[in-house]
Amino acid sequence: MTARKTSTTSPLTAEQQAEIEALRGSVQKTRRATVPALEEVLYEALPVLDHGFVRVIDYMGDDAAVVQAARVSYGRGTRRVSEDRGLINYLMRHRHTTPFEMCEIKYHVKLPIFVARQWIRHRTANVNEYSARYSILDKEFYIPAPDKLGGQARDNRQGRGEVLQGEEAARVLDLLREDSENSYAHYQEMLNEGDDGRVLDESRSGLARELARMNLTLNFYTQWYWKIDLHNLMHFLSLRADDHAQYEIRVYADVMLETAMRWVPLCLAAFREYRMGGTMLSAKGLDVVKRMLAGEDVEQAECGLSKREWRELMEALGRA
Amino acid sequence: MTARKTSTTSPLTAEQQAEIEALRGSVQKTRRATVPALEEVLYEALPVLDHGFVRVIDYMGDDAAVVQAARVSYGRGTRRVSEDRGLINYLMRHRHTTPFEMCEIKYHVKLPIFVARQWIRHRTANVNEYSARYSILDKEFYIPAPDKLGGQARDNRQGRGEVLQGEEAARVLDLLREDSENSYAHYQEMLNEGDDGRVLDESRSGLARELARMNLTLNFYTQWYWKIDLHNLMHFLSLRADDHAQYEIRVYADVMLETAMRWVPLCLAAFREYRMGGTMLSAKGLDVVKRMLAGEDVEQAECGLSKREWRELMEALGRA
Amino acid sequence: MTARKTSTTSPLTAEQQAEIEALRGSVQKTRRATVPALEEVLYEALPVLDHGFVRVIDYMGDDAAVVQAARVSYGRGTRRVSEDRGLINYLMRHRHTTPFEMCEIKYHVKLPIFVARQWIRHRTANVNEYSARYSILDKEFYIPAPDKLGGQARDNRQGRGEVLQGEEAARVLDLLREDSENSYAHYQEMLNEGDDGRVLDESRSGLARELARMNLTLNFYTQWYWKIDLHNLMHFLSLRADDHAQYEIRVYADVMLETAMRWVPLCLAAFREYRMGGTMLSAKGLDVVKRMLAGEDVEQAECGLSKREWRELMEALGRA
Amino acid sequence: MTARKTSTTSPLTAEQQAEIEALRGSVQKTRRATVPALEEVLYEALPVLDHGFVRVIDYMGDDAAVVQAARVSYGRGTRRVSEDRGLINYLMRHRHTTPFEMCEIKYHVKLPIFVARQWIRHRTANVNEYSARYSILDKEFYIPAPDKLGGQARDNRQGRGEVLQGEEAARVLDLLREDSENSYAHYQEMLNEGDDGRVLDESRSGLARELARMNLTLNFYTQWYWKIDLHNLMHFLSLRADDHAQYEIRVYADVMLETAMRWVPLCLAAFREYRMGGTMLSAKGLDVVKRMLAGEDVEQAECGLSKREWRELMEALGRA
Repeated sequence: MTARKTSTTSPLTAEQQAEIEALRGSVQKTRRATVPALEEVLYEALPVLDHGFVRVIDYMGDDAAVVQAARVSYGRGTRRVSEDRGLINYLMRHRHTTPFEMCEIKYHVKLPIFVARQWIRHRTANVNEYSARYSILDKEFYIPAPDKLGGQARDNRQGRGEVLQGEEAARVLDLLREDSENSYAHYQEMLNEGDDGRVLDESRSGLARELARMNLTLNFYTQWYWKIDLHNLMHFLSLRADDHAQYEIRVYADVMLETAMRWVPLCLAAFREYRMGGTMLSAKGLDVVKRMLAGEDVEQAECGLSKREWRELMEALGRA
Repeated sequence: MTARKTSTTSPLTAEQQAEIEALRGSVQKTRRATVPALEEVLYEALPVLDHGFVRVIDYMGDDAAVVQAARVSYGRGTRRVSEDRGLINYLMRHRHTTPFEMCEIKYHVKLPIFVARQWIRHRTANVNEYSARYSILDKEFYIPAPDKLGGQARDNRQGRGEVLQGEEAARVLDLLREDSENSYAHYQEMLNEGDDGRVLDESRSGLARELARMNLTLNFYTQWYWKIDLHNLMHFLSLRADDHAQYEIRVYADVMLETAMRWVPLCLAAFREYRMGGTMLSAKGLDVVKRMLAGEDVEQAECGLSKREWRELMEALGRA
Repeated sequence: MTARKTSTTSPLTAEQQAEIEALRGSVQKTRRATVPALEEVLYEALPVLDHGFVRVIDYMGDDAAVVQAARVSYGRGTRRVSEDRGLINYLMRHRHTTPFEMCEIKYHVKLPIFVARQWIRHRTANVNEYSARYSILDKEFYIPAPDKLGGQARDNRQGRGEVLQGEEAARVLDLLREDSENSYAHYQEMLNEGDDGRVLDESRSGLARELARMNLTLNFYTQWYWKIDLHNLMHFLSLRADDHAQYEIRVYADVMLETAMRWVPLCLAAFREYRMGGTMLSAKGLDVVKRMLAGEDVEQAECGLSKREWRELMEALGRA
Repeated sequence: MTARKTSTTSPLTAEQQAEIEALRGSVQKTRRATVPALEEVLYEALPVLDHGFVRVIDYMGDDAAVVQAARVSYGRGTRRVSEDRGLINYLMRHRHTTPFEMCEIKYHVKLPIFVARQWIRHRTANVNEYSARYSILDKEFYIPAPDKLGGQARDNRQGRGEVLQGEEAARVLDLLREDSENSYAHYQEMLNEGDDGRVLDESRSGLARELARMNLTLNFYTQWYWKIDLHNLMHFLSLRADDHAQYEIRVYADVMLETAMRWVPLCLAAFREYRMGGTMLSAKGLDVVKRMLAGEDVEQAECGLSKREWRELMEALGRA
């Protein structure tokens, strides 16, 4: 029985760290497309939140593999970098998505359960989650940093407003921490199993793991292997590395965005130019822009856009 | 603001029940394939566990629609019932799965979060879950019935053994109930919002819903609309209406199996004959059967099967 | 053996037409959401190209079903039409796609094989194709109308330029027709089976159907049942009911767009406002628009857009 | 303009062969899981049919990666080979499929269009096909070897019977060849483009590629990049490397099966033991086996199995 992880500042035990180092120290020869910038961080636990991480476990393909697939070529498919960039930009602009599906990446992620529940809604990925039906979860739970303790937004039911202050903040942090501690202590009691797997009371049989887990709160950490192709990764990032995403999932997406930039820099540059950095104009929004460019003084009241759409359009155009 | 549901014996409020009755009372004419036996229970909340339910919300197709698609026909595609049954059996036996994808069913399900987490692993379905980021969850949590309080299985880390008794059982039920009550009370306190949505303390702003939810335990109920085609539904049922599945998800699958039998009785009969009621023999297992049929006295030790495989084979053959 | 279809002006035999009429004449009662405007055309063969058609065979859900799923409601979920429209517009604008997956439609489509090969690339649908391995294809092939005989575009390798004229056009039409006739005659000869299924030469056994089919040209018609949810249908339409799509698939998408407008008018209005009628600005394109709105005189050479991107942007802004 | 491929004995031009050799000669260092036995054949064109091939272009993971994902481990996840084998067998037997999804392989395949049309029905893969809308297809078509010229099966509409002989066989081969030659010659004429891309007639503009392709017969070769995870590859192989599959797709599956055995030998051994080499017993079939094992003399007429099912069962049990 392995010592179970209990909350510390590092997301890894010494044993886990040693396993990772062993992997990083072992180098093989391959004929496959290889990306040194991504190999640099391979297997490393990139920290996220208080106990979470993102680890790149494996990858298939590189920028050239996208070109190769688009050309259905016998060789590398690439010519000059400028030509490759041009083709990749063309594919991205015209939403020819299949060549981007030819690259694949695999992550090991440790994340709070409530984040995992949002994340799993992306169905076009492969997942292997740590089973709390089979195993016992570590005592690790997420407590927001004080500056992330957002209050309920007033104008947007799905968002955060100003950060809680003073007593209210302190009380929230206390409640979260106490309830997490409490729920884990009772989890162990019901399992009849303490740290290091020792039996607590020989006279009891212990509740089944598949049942006991229901007493844990949603801020406990779980972990999974998650594998996805580049097209679907970019879709995930466009939704989750975005201002509208909840902070606790956005920080994961941000780290993954950085790993993707190491991996396929030309694709990611195209993605940022044509997807993340751009904006979608609606039919009426496009009409407003055309009229403004023609020198007209357009008013919200008569242009057909709702107040909210108008505000969003003006913000996108830098005129808010 | 609607009154929030708090634990009672019925899974529905009077208001919800009235909405359902209104739906059931409204009848339209249609040229589409229609299944009276399923219409009978349409929209009804079929109870599962202590506060959960399964509701059939909509469906597309019937047994004949499978035949129609298999024949790519202009009309109904059906001839005599016996012919339809023969074709459906043939499709099932030979794993011609695409005609079964031509039927679709939509459920509204209320279920504990830890069950939802298993369930969502079936990716070939469409899901709309109630958002605890946007809304406030009701105070409803799952407490196992005393006879379902399985202890941890000794020989199978992923299973339940004997039901807990006496003090141990009572203590587990107390812990589950207290921690659930506690976590919900603190959820409301952090939200600064009581039952019926009233503000608890005007001097506080309340934690964002997307954060406060993390304090809930995994036995709280969530709900979703879940839509799936018949082929994938049968795959789901083959895994979840099975002895190896956790009891708390199996009871949902059992109810859904009954609705499916109302809906497409010929397909379900074929499914039970060729999938659920049958057994898969491995290459070595098949060899053992052949030798036994030839009158040989086969021993586990020399047949190549592990002890566990041998035991499972003998059980399947009714010789255990 | 049923008489095989041979080319005539109608895409249907009298027998097929009778089967369709029988379906249309049969009306049932249902508690399900029903859309009269779509029921009107249910089962009808809406003609496309010279021998193809689109038939709506079944559907699940309506505009209100999207609202119902988004709210995870017990009843219909709808309030006033204006509120439903507002919610649907909101979902479409913010790419909350899952509620649109709660509606499903099933088509029967007859289409040339080369069109089917493009179409099938949309993987998020269910398909049952008529099997030329099992059955014999009808003698029906696509010959373009003279005004659709586009020459190869000079500036775009994936497109059509001016329509062929005079002798060149006549020659092309002759070649297509002769080779189709020829390939079908030899298909029958190899099968050793004539019209109406009679054996041609009792002394021969006939080539297997799964082999003989390889002699048919890609303009022969095939047919399939095709089922898809509303979200994925809209994605299909956004790519195929578009100027960049090949004419021969666009005409199918155009007919399907009309059926979708009958089915879920609020969703389709939102789709046309926020997807099809709008435009995507890239990061640099957005910057150009901002500068132009600020009164700057922006030049292609210095703004970072390629000539092609610049031209496309100016066209989108109505300034080309 | 590259010289187009015209039928020869090798499926590759010298130029293509050189591109492949360049890829094979380039070796990089990597920290990723690497499989020397698969690297040996990486990029090589493994010949299939008269002009087709299968090339392994890239792969992700190995046997240990399945174990690693199943354990959600920090290191390699493997212990002793015997333990890994045991876990892999367990996963395969109990249909725990997700760990097998953690390995991925990418192929470049050249195949006749009628084979491609069957193949593409497997939707859980990523595909990039050579575009005949954008490019011109090579003059390469499939002609069956004389011993593969199966006649139509009498008892099974979806199968082949005895091989055609003598004059009938010769006539079929002539027809296939002539019609293919003919359709390609007219394809070029309509395109107004000869071998090596020279214009045939300066006075003509040439039909658009997207239209001219419709004149090709279904035995012409196309090619694609095809990427799939190990679980779905095994599903593909179970259907296509099977006696019921058409010969022309089975030969591709057979070659891919060999590459898979190089890649993940433990997984493939489990796959052959528990899937391909085994057999599924239906509920009634299982009952028959039980009764036979109990010494009963079971008859088809009274056991509830159809004659066909009975025959298939007796064959599976080696008693036919």
